[in-house]
Amino acid sequence: MTYCVGLKLDRGLVFAADTRTNAGVDNIACFKKLHTWELPGERVFTLMTAGNLAVSQSVVSILSEQIAAPTQNPVNLMTVETMFQAARLVGQSVRDVRALDGEALAANAESFFVTMIFGGQIKGEEPRLFQIYSAGNFIEATKDTPFFQIGEHKYGKPILDRVTRSDMRLGEAAKLVLLSFDSTLRSNLSVGMPIDLLLYNTDSFTLKRQKRIHKDDPYFQTLSSAWSNALRKAFTEIEEFEI
Amino acid sequence: MTYCVGLKLDRGLVFAADTRTNAGVDNIACFKKLHTWELPGERVFTLMTAGNLAVSQSVVSILSEQIAAPTQNPVNLMTVETMFQAARLVGQSVRDVRALDGEALAANAESFFVTMIFGGQIKGEEPRLFQIYSAGNFIEATKDTPFFQIGEHKYGKPILDRVTRSDMRLGEAAKLVLLSFDSTLRSNLSVGMPIDLLLYNTDSFTLKRQKRIHKDDPYFQTLSSAWSNALRKAFTEIEEFEI
Repeated sequence: MTYCVGLKLDRGLVFAADTRTNAGVDNIACFKKLHTWELPGERVFTLMTAGNLAVSQSVVSILSEQIAAPTQNPVNLMTVETMFQAARLVGQSVRDVRALDGEALAANAESFFVTMIFGGQIKGEEPRLFQIYSAGNFIEATKDTPFFQIGEHKYGKPILDRVTRSDMRLGEAAKLVLLSFDSTLRSNLSVGMPIDLLLYNTDSFTLKRQKRIHKDDPYFQTLSSAWSNALRKAFTEIEEFEI
Repeated sequence: MTYCVGLKLDRGLVFAADTRTNAGVDNIACFKKLHTWELPGERVFTLMTAGNLAVSQSVVSILSEQIAAPTQNPVNLMTVETMFQAARLVGQSVRDVRALDGEALAANAESFFVTMIFGGQIKGEEPRLFQIYSAGNFIEATKDTPFFQIGEHKYGKPILDRVTRSDMRLGEAAKLVLLSFDSTLRSNLSVGMPIDLLLYNTDSFTLKRQKRIHKDDPYFQTLSSAWSNALRKAFTEIEEFEI
């Protein structure tokens, strides 16, 4: 399993991804699921992936190879003019991987499954955030629901539903996202630390605000225990039910 | 979908079930999923069901018919000597329904699926709580994990994980269970009010503490908004994240 969250806020974008992969509960490993490309000052992209790791790594490699060989691939992430075109490029890469591996996966009774959160900003546009499906099609985040989740989304959704607002500060949103991870990590063993966190400020065109948060991270530990205590306190303060 | 929770605490048992059934999102209805049998002063049983409604209603009817015709059914809920034997009787009823309907369901490409929470007390024993599967087998709640959930369990699990303690008062546990429902109701349309709630005090051998909680129930409304406010307040009070 996997857990990734992306938020599109007035002030920018927030991305967070866990790093656990598993082939059965007796075979877990740590893989980065948050990938970035940037042309500083001009354009930035972040892609987070859930599903078949072979598929999602292939998508990342295809996108990177296109950038590395612009003569053969004049249309790549560094040349597209809008985030919509960039999302179409990611979707096309998913379809390319299906063309390469889909038949062999089916022959092995394995499903071709991948979902992705893709976001970024190209100069001249606002930051945009997309969720991309196995078919290569996608949806875009709007003000009504400014976040996307992929992978094990249920445990961490209630807090996002209650607290997310488009006008949040990025540091506030980072706190929210880490709380959403805290709930998920407690309930699902197939989601695991460290967490890759990235904050992107609108019009900054840089991906410098990135951090890998390990299990012993002092902020995360404080957050986790402070939240537990606050929940228990809030619970105690509400009147008991009587029949 | 469905959401039901059962808790086994030092002071007794708590049961809560939603009432929504659906055959697709365009066909929802209200059905009771919390069923009881009692011999006041001697024995009490509660059964909550999730899965195929035809299967679970058949199980309930079989158990009731056995009680109504004790000559043909000398072994029934009113005659078994322990809760373990009662749970086996419920499991056997599931197997009886499979024998009746399983083949026809399979021919129609429908799955035989039902999960149940079954609990109660028979004089001479402590209260006991079981989770019963489609195969008719079951597990029993212990001190380590004193609750069972069936149906849409994920949204409502974080609060149960954090707050449940075996030594809770029943009114406190009812508050907890209703908060768990509140989170679930917000995130999953296929779980719907009213909620049937039942509190059973150990050695009381009566099921009088039952209530159907409707959407406009003042306690539930207060609980729901107090919890939202408390969460937002707790969220605000935790320090923001900085990279």
